[in-house]
Amino acid sequence: MGLREQRMTRTRRELARTARRLTIERGLAGFTIDELCEIVGVSRRTFFNYFPSKEDAVVGHAADGLDDEALEFFVAMRPRVDGISPNLLDDLAAVAIASVGPEFEESPDGGLDDPGAVVAREPQLLARFTTAGAEVEARLVNAVERREGLLPGDPVARTAVLLIGTLIRDAAERRLRHETASFADALLDSVADAKRLLQPER
Amino acid sequence: MGLREQRMTRTRRELARTARRLTIERGLAGFTIDELCEIVGVSRRTFFNYFPSKEDAVVGHAADGLDDEALEFFVAMRPRVDGISPNLLDDLAAVAIASVGPEFEESPDGGLDDPGAVVAREPQLLARFTTAGAEVEARLVNAVERREGLLPGDPVARTAVLLIGTLIRDAAERRLRHETASFADALLDSVADAKRLLQPER
Repeated sequence: MGLREQRMTRTRRELARTARRLTIERGLAGFTIDELCEIVGVSRRTFFNYFPSKEDAVVGHAADGLDDEALEFFVAMRPRVDGISPNLLDDLAAVAIASVGPEFEESPDGGLDDPGAVVAREPQLLARFTTAGAEVEARLVNAVERREGLLPGDPVARTAVLLIGTLIRDAAERRLRHETASFADALLDSVADAKRLLQPER
Repeated sequence: MGLREQRMTRTRRELARTARRLTIERGLAGFTIDELCEIVGVSRRTFFNYFPSKEDAVVGHAADGLDDEALEFFVAMRPRVDGISPNLLDDLAAVAIASVGPEFEESPDGGLDDPGAVVAREPQLLARFTTAGAEVEARLVNAVERREGLLPGDPVARTAVLLIGTLIRDAAERRLRHETASFADALLDSVADAKRLLQPER
């Protein structure tokens, strides 16, 4: 990713994060696009380069849900084994850790950026977040299928994405509740716990 | 469970199922408690024995989320092994299968009873369903801790409940979309897939 593209991604994420924080604090009707732009330090014109509306900013850009480079690395790095690669869930966790971005790890008030809290305040946004989440899931399922050489629709790929998605949400929630110092550590611990639970019968 | 108690559980579940179906079709404001009672074949007085309001009927009774007898059986039936029992997820799946009730398996229009579809129609009910789901999860976590001899708050118990919860929701959604003939088969297949994914590294 070039420097210009990195800056654009940072601005787009910052607009989305701030829009979510304002929605949690005041509701969607409680702030204007102008206020949002002033807080982030961009012009109205810049805002509309990124998002067609205030609601779209709150939901965020689809590309910010997954780090494309990490995802392609994930597909390319399959170990040479027969069957499902044993480190599949660990490698999916690595994609998630690369995707959430350093802001999430570092922000001490990350709690104010939680989609769950946004939906609790503005329930009508649920469908938008659900659709956005389903798109991210579909891209991940496709990547797992490609990496593992599975036919499209193989239930193993969907199950892998369901499981890692649950562990990702749980690690994010624990980070947001300040129960863990790091999203990455929480997620890697959960994957290790999951492996303990699902070892084959002895 | 005595015959009288069984009949009461059936009536309570039938009221909740019908209230959800009517909410999906017409919205909460689109039907009265009297209409609901007429469809189920009970009196207003009976309705208020079970639920204090129409919304409460839509959310359903907490006791109907988990089969108590299956849950106590689950706690008692721990195999004699050191560490986490290898069949923990399978046994949690058995609790879920006992809990969903035969109506869910048999009803050809089970699709009209989906909490997700209710929330899509009446987003303000999300918090109620979330709270109800969290209560069921807390009871399951407690049961896993007791069965496995884990300290309260051990992350392994929470991870086990998160994983089985995801697989349960997925199996239920597939059943509701008629992608599988049986909730039980779909869930047991998913648990088997999860085990394939999370086997220890070879």
